[in-house]
Amino acid sequence: MKMAMQRIKTAIVGASGYTGSELLRLLLQHPHVDLCAVTSRQEAGKAISALFPRFRSLPGADLAFMEPDADAIAATGAQVAFLALPHGVAAEIATALLARGLKVIDLSADFRIHDPGVYQEFYQHPHPAPELLKSSVYGLAEMYEKEIAAASLIAAPGCYPTSILLPLIPLLRANLLDPHSIIANSMSGVSGAGKKADTAYLFCECNESLRAYGLPKHRHLAEIEQELSLAAGEKLRITFIPHLVPVNTGIHSAITASLRAGVTLEQIGNALENAYAGKPFVRLLGAGVCADTKNVTRTNFIDIGWHHDARTGRVILTSAEDNVVKGAGGQAVQSFNLIFGLDEKAGLHSV
Amino acid sequence: MKMAMQRIKTAIVGASGYTGSELLRLLLQHPHVDLCAVTSRQEAGKAISALFPRFRSLPGADLAFMEPDADAIAATGAQVAFLALPHGVAAEIATALLARGLKVIDLSADFRIHDPGVYQEFYQHPHPAPELLKSSVYGLAEMYEKEIAAASLIAAPGCYPTSILLPLIPLLRANLLDPHSIIANSMSGVSGAGKKADTAYLFCECNESLRAYGLPKHRHLAEIEQELSLAAGEKLRITFIPHLVPVNTGIHSAITASLRAGVTLEQIGNALENAYAGKPFVRLLGAGVCADTKNVTRTNFIDIGWHHDARTGRVILTSAEDNVVKGAGGQAVQSFNLIFGLDEKAGLHSV
Amino acid sequence: MKMAMQRIKTAIVGASGYTGSELLRLLLQHPHVDLCAVTSRQEAGKAISALFPRFRSLPGADLAFMEPDADAIAATGAQVAFLALPHGVAAEIATALLARGLKVIDLSADFRIHDPGVYQEFYQHPHPAPELLKSSVYGLAEMYEKEIAAASLIAAPGCYPTSILLPLIPLLRANLLDPHSIIANSMSGVSGAGKKADTAYLFCECNESLRAYGLPKHRHLAEIEQELSLAAGEKLRITFIPHLVPVNTGIHSAITASLRAGVTLEQIGNALENAYAGKPFVRLLGAGVCADTKNVTRTNFIDIGWHHDARTGRVILTSAEDNVVKGAGGQAVQSFNLIFGLDEKAGLHSV
Amino acid sequence: MKMAMQRIKTAIVGASGYTGSELLRLLLQHPHVDLCAVTSRQEAGKAISALFPRFRSLPGADLAFMEPDADAIAATGAQVAFLALPHGVAAEIATALLARGLKVIDLSADFRIHDPGVYQEFYQHPHPAPELLKSSVYGLAEMYEKEIAAASLIAAPGCYPTSILLPLIPLLRANLLDPHSIIANSMSGVSGAGKKADTAYLFCECNESLRAYGLPKHRHLAEIEQELSLAAGEKLRITFIPHLVPVNTGIHSAITASLRAGVTLEQIGNALENAYAGKPFVRLLGAGVCADTKNVTRTNFIDIGWHHDARTGRVILTSAEDNVVKGAGGQAVQSFNLIFGLDEKAGLHSV
Repeated sequence: MKMAMQRIKTAIVGASGYTGSELLRLLLQHPHVDLCAVTSRQEAGKAISALFPRFRSLPGADLAFMEPDADAIAATGAQVAFLALPHGVAAEIATALLARGLKVIDLSADFRIHDPGVYQEFYQHPHPAPELLKSSVYGLAEMYEKEIAAASLIAAPGCYPTSILLPLIPLLRANLLDPHSIIANSMSGVSGAGKKADTAYLFCECNESLRAYGLPKHRHLAEIEQELSLAAGEKLRITFIPHLVPVNTGIHSAITASLRAGVTLEQIGNALENAYAGKPFVRLLGAGVCADTKNVTRTNFIDIGWHHDARTGRVILTSAEDNVVKGAGGQAVQSFNLIFGLDEKAGLHSV
Repeated sequence: MKMAMQRIKTAIVGASGYTGSELLRLLLQHPHVDLCAVTSRQEAGKAISALFPRFRSLPGADLAFMEPDADAIAATGAQVAFLALPHGVAAEIATALLARGLKVIDLSADFRIHDPGVYQEFYQHPHPAPELLKSSVYGLAEMYEKEIAAASLIAAPGCYPTSILLPLIPLLRANLLDPHSIIANSMSGVSGAGKKADTAYLFCECNESLRAYGLPKHRHLAEIEQELSLAAGEKLRITFIPHLVPVNTGIHSAITASLRAGVTLEQIGNALENAYAGKPFVRLLGAGVCADTKNVTRTNFIDIGWHHDARTGRVILTSAEDNVVKGAGGQAVQSFNLIFGLDEKAGLHSV
Repeated sequence: MKMAMQRIKTAIVGASGYTGSELLRLLLQHPHVDLCAVTSRQEAGKAISALFPRFRSLPGADLAFMEPDADAIAATGAQVAFLALPHGVAAEIATALLARGLKVIDLSADFRIHDPGVYQEFYQHPHPAPELLKSSVYGLAEMYEKEIAAASLIAAPGCYPTSILLPLIPLLRANLLDPHSIIANSMSGVSGAGKKADTAYLFCECNESLRAYGLPKHRHLAEIEQELSLAAGEKLRITFIPHLVPVNTGIHSAITASLRAGVTLEQIGNALENAYAGKPFVRLLGAGVCADTKNVTRTNFIDIGWHHDARTGRVILTSAEDNVVKGAGGQAVQSFNLIFGLDEKAGLHSV
Repeated sequence: MKMAMQRIKTAIVGASGYTGSELLRLLLQHPHVDLCAVTSRQEAGKAISALFPRFRSLPGADLAFMEPDADAIAATGAQVAFLALPHGVAAEIATALLARGLKVIDLSADFRIHDPGVYQEFYQHPHPAPELLKSSVYGLAEMYEKEIAAASLIAAPGCYPTSILLPLIPLLRANLLDPHSIIANSMSGVSGAGKKADTAYLFCECNESLRAYGLPKHRHLAEIEQELSLAAGEKLRITFIPHLVPVNTGIHSAITASLRAGVTLEQIGNALENAYAGKPFVRLLGAGVCADTKNVTRTNFIDIGWHHDARTGRVILTSAEDNVVKGAGGQAVQSFNLIFGLDEKAGLHSV
């Protein structure tokens, strides 16, 4: 097949953090990618393999980081750019790259929220490029496969939202839950905080520590509630409690909701199985099984289990994913694969 | 003061596990304890310091483990025995020791549940000594101080229940919450699983792993619901989601409940402050502050913070304790101090 | 190329432990392997994916564990068997499988030691199949490539030995070191202890613990000294200090030796570079660079750095590998690739 | 006893890092300390309990950090100051405080090296106060008890040096070892790197990572070789290999040396037992026993075991200590106790 030999010239903008390095790992090994540009303001001039000795054996790892300049990136022939930048910053370079004809897969929050007012409420500054919101597609591949394939600008979902949306959306679409009863408790590995010089994320501050944070209005609520409301067909709000726990990567979410009267566990199972038949990265564990992040770390899988708390009339959903793979870089590569007509699993099988 | 010089002859029955070794740590250093007997079926004959080199410098650490025999324990002159045994096993020796005139502080579940039917429902066997349930006191010192002081048989609360009950009871007593809306998400360190040769708790099975377990009907629900129902003045049920996370010790609970109409954050704070004024081991962090286990590990404190999720009308309570101290051995020593008229903090100040 | 399509029918005997599960991970994803039999006495009848949910998405993961019976394994058409069994046990089934015409790649210590007297000294029982020692090949692919390719019975090296031999052999062959001055300090992740129900390896016994063990005569000394003596051309003995440290996988070795008079750092570098030119899994970090296990975990690489301690006339070598990959399963697959004429890197590239 | 009621007015200069917070923990609970001043440039104005919620229950924890000004410190009536500052900075304030009549216990390297030339060689700048070197005493209480009791300026030993000197000094003094054969391999918890905003010590950079660093000439060699040379009665040099490993606190050292001809394991044991009889914080584990940091963390003990590697004629010593207690704050408090004529164990018993 001709497509199998195709190599897409690809850039990563902001490749020195944890999401960036996961993109490097995936794209340096992707059979259809020719990595032609990687940027980092602070590491410009250094080779990928110098910053990340883990990758020193991979072809392409001698590529040097460059400054994040849209013209320079376009000049490398890049057809697509992944952006692993802080929110607010991403929108600016996205605009410039789109204007130069590149596809853009943005891993920041900048294009996830349809309503610029909601963006401003949660991110505390006016949206930097509101006109682009109309064309951006929320990159949850299991839900928006066709839209992603046709898009120029993808907003890859946040790590927590992915772990909460995939278990819930099919159940809300099937009208099995009271949409106002949802409470999500999530635990994240420390890579979720990013690779920044902040004493709060030093080894000794996180090891042997369990803590909630970001209460009661974590930014990810904006996209979680947007997508859940779309699924429920009505505006809803949830309580979301994120925790920081001492693992490198991994997100575990335990989600409760009251079942609509008469809804059975079988209906829960059916709704999930119907939604994810043929979806290669969602693994349904079945009723009575709990998800465990150690089964999904460094993979693009999300595992989902469910329990009926018959005593209280609630369903308990548990999900496990790797926050930097399915919750970030891997999911972004899934969108890439769809955009370029590749096998959705290309570059993402490894377990 | 004369009391200050008093030394109470004390036994620990089942001193080789994680709860037992925490009791050893506390009691070997307690100013009013003369540890006269420690038992362990599998370690009988060995010195404490041989099994636990950490304690080798403490006076008394050359005491040898003996077989768990009630007559032999009584013969050492023990006035009181702490039991750190599996449920079902504890009741039998408790009965024998009480008959020999010892006070008993039991850390198993055997005497926590007032209703033997509920015990049987959750522990899957008939209660082994139902007649003792009438006189046993639930050893939550912040709630039952007077009853504990007068008791011969204390049922020290479970680790999870302590972390859930202390934040909630004052709010239910003050009628601030919808009692049917409570959901508790807890994370526990691996010591909570006990020191047993089970591959599920090997380092490599727990490190870099996040998982829920025991869904939907963990045994601790029995005592949690018993005590919350008493506080609420009506029968209630909650959803409880325990998780196993890679720390040695520490329990973090995040608890949500719907506020009764019109209830303010100030009322929440007042109820907690009124309940815990003068209680030395409850540290109220205040509104808007999250608890962190690293501030309480190896201490008998429980830290409690709270947030108002105004968007959904819920309160979010977070608590942090050390599961083997405040959640087990330390709390049991608190009861011991109350029984023998000692300062409640004796042997428990160290930070 | 015709070879590219070849699939070798392969068995894993003893596939339920940490080495076994790493072999499963590698062989289920190996492009030239058709996994036809996996055995486990205690898990017989269960599917691979039931025991290891991580692998549930891989083709072949529904294969069920069978009892370890040589006839039954041969009946599956297996051409080769990997043995991940305790020493002593491995020899017996190896003999039976060889008799049935299979190639055998044994990951135990049973065929590593040429001299049955040394085996008995270190393993405390007579060698169970001394006649096979003549034909077995020590599976250190960087040193015995040709012999491996021609062998029917491979003794895959131990995890510590691999990390110590690869840095030292080229320097001893080049006569750069005083062979009687070698001291190796190694740290291993807890997977090195195996997946056995032993309280010594519980999470709480290993986390926040640093300890040496196995002093002064760890079993791996037998093969280390055998191979170093061969490289030096004279009988030598070393001091070896293994440590258990709280990581899942990874071995780090720091090795010191006195330099022969006049030997320069450049000669050290040259000897290593000459030895490992074209060897795909040895990554020489250069002079002045320290190895770090986090750059090699879950890969088949070993990273090696070196320093000149000019003040004392010693060289300090540091190496890092993953104990269950390069130190066990991955290295065994390297031998497999050589035996079957495949690309040495087949199934082993992933980073 | 009158002394028992004495409370010494005490300051901590630089109390916001890991060593500083350990000093806070020890001194806030010390029965003879009245903590009257704590300084931190960046936290000035904040209460101790605000920065360290762990301490919020301790009397004195509402004391506010002040700027590090010698006059202001002296004005609080402080009789003694502990300095937990970077090298170079410590000397300046030490000079000023000594001039104001305070005793100074410095935890930096500034006063550990007798020879300012060696200081300059290892610390790369001229010694900031060479005249004070004559009167400063190296605060290794087990070796310099009398000198410490009489001193005004103590240089508390480094964390690694403590773990290496205590096992070796008695053996060198007894002339049992070849002094030129010593190699020390040490592993340190991440708190040893200090509480600084440096991405190298983020959780994800240290967790699941094993690495050596600081080769071949770590700064601690200066004081290690100074003290070992004094013990041996001749100038010696050692090879020292420090490693960073994923625990919060703890140092484990494994030290090898060639035994002088004819030296027996019994002589090793005798020399250690003679040296440490009556020394409360050195716990000799005996021949054939390995030290484990989990037995000493959060205590002021150092555990020492030894093995005879008869095959090579070497002794292997293992030691375990807590790097922020016996290796820093606790050891400094030991000196404090000696200076003020208190029980050497005051404030340091807790296990």
